[in-house]
Amino acid sequence: MPYISVEAHLPGITGLLEYRKDSAEPIRNLTQFLLRGPNTLTEGERELIASIVSHNNECRFCSSAHTAATDLLLGESHTAACVKADIETAPVSEKMKALLTIAKQIQKSGKAVTTETVERAKRAGATDVEIHDTVLIAALFCLYNRYVDGLATVTPTDPDFYKNLADRIVHHGYTRLPQGYEHLKK
Amino acid sequence: MPYISVEAHLPGITGLLEYRKDSAEPIRNLTQFLLRGPNTLTEGERELIASIVSHNNECRFCSSAHTAATDLLLGESHTAACVKADIETAPVSEKMKALLTIAKQIQKSGKAVTTETVERAKRAGATDVEIHDTVLIAALFCLYNRYVDGLATVTPTDPDFYKNLADRIVHHGYTRLPQGYEHLKK
Repeated sequence: MPYISVEAHLPGITGLLEYRKDSAEPIRNLTQFLLRGPNTLTEGERELIASIVSHNNECRFCSSAHTAATDLLLGESHTAACVKADIETAPVSEKMKALLTIAKQIQKSGKAVTTETVERAKRAGATDVEIHDTVLIAALFCLYNRYVDGLATVTPTDPDFYKNLADRIVHHGYTRLPQGYEHLKK
Repeated sequence: MPYISVEAHLPGITGLLEYRKDSAEPIRNLTQFLLRGPNTLTEGERELIASIVSHNNECRFCSSAHTAATDLLLGESHTAACVKADIETAPVSEKMKALLTIAKQIQKSGKAVTTETVERAKRAGATDVEIHDTVLIAALFCLYNRYVDGLATVTPTDPDFYKNLADRIVHHGYTRLPQGYEHLKK
C-alpha cells in the first residue's frame, strides 16, 4: 500500500503526478524535452537509457513501462532484453554501448562515470550534447525510480497495463493529456 | 576538467544550466516549487533535506551550496553540521528527524524507505504532502548530484563562492535571473 493517499486506480508514477500537479508539470516537461524533443538520439535509444537505469535500480514499474515503450518504438523486444542482460554483446552501435555504459555508471553514482567511458563515447562519434543528455536522462530516472518506490506505489503485474502505458507515452508523450482525451489514460 | 564544453567561468550546476537552457527551465521550475513554493516545511528545513542527500552522495558542489543556503536561512551553521554528523542527536524536531531519515534512505534507493520510518514521521505529525515533498526533494537531489558529478564539473574550493551562491538562491530563488540582474550571478 502506498505511504501516502494517492488515487487507488492510478498505480506507479501515474498516481504521484496526479497527487501533486504543481510538481508534476515541470517533471512532465523535462521528460518530454529529454525523451521526445528534437535530438540526434532516437526516441528508442533514449527510452533504452531510461530502461537500463530503471532496471538496475530494480524499479519494476519504471523498468516495465520504459522497456515496453522501447519495444514499441523499435518494433521488437530483443534489443532491450539484450541490453539489460549485457550491453557489450547487445545488438546496438558502439556509440550506444558507450552511452548505455555511462547511464549504468550514473545509476550507481555521478562519480562512477569514468574518463575512459566518456572517451570511448566520443571516439564512437557521440557529441557533447548526446553525452549531456545521456547523463541527464539517466539522472532523471534515478529521480523517478526513487519517487515511485520511495512512496511504495502499486506495481501492476499485468503486462497489458504496461503495453497500454507504452502506447500512450509513445503516441502522446509525457505531457498532460488535454481535456477530452482522458480516455487515453488507460 | 568537465567532460563536455561548459563555460569555464561557470562551475558545478551553474554551467550545466546555461549549457542546455531547454532542459534547465523545467529543472529550475521544479526546484523553485519544491524548495521555495508555499509549504508547511520551512525553506531551511527543505534546504536541510537537499544538504543531507548531497552530503551522502558525496557531491561536494551541491553539499557546499545547500549547506551554505541552510546556514543562511537558519542564521547559524550548527544544525546542518549536526544533521550531517548524526540526525538522531541533531537539534531538530522529531518530525524533521524522521523526514531527514527518509531523505537518507532515498539517497540509497527508493526501496530503502521503510514503513517504520514513514510511520514515525506520521506519528510526529508529518502530513502526506510533507512526506511526498521530502521524497521528491531527496530524489531531485539524487538527480542534481549525478548531473553535476557525472559530467565532472568544476568544484570551487573557496567558501566565499558558496556564500555568494547561497545569497543568490536564498534571496532570488532558483529561477532564471531576469535580464538586467545578471550581476547577481556572482
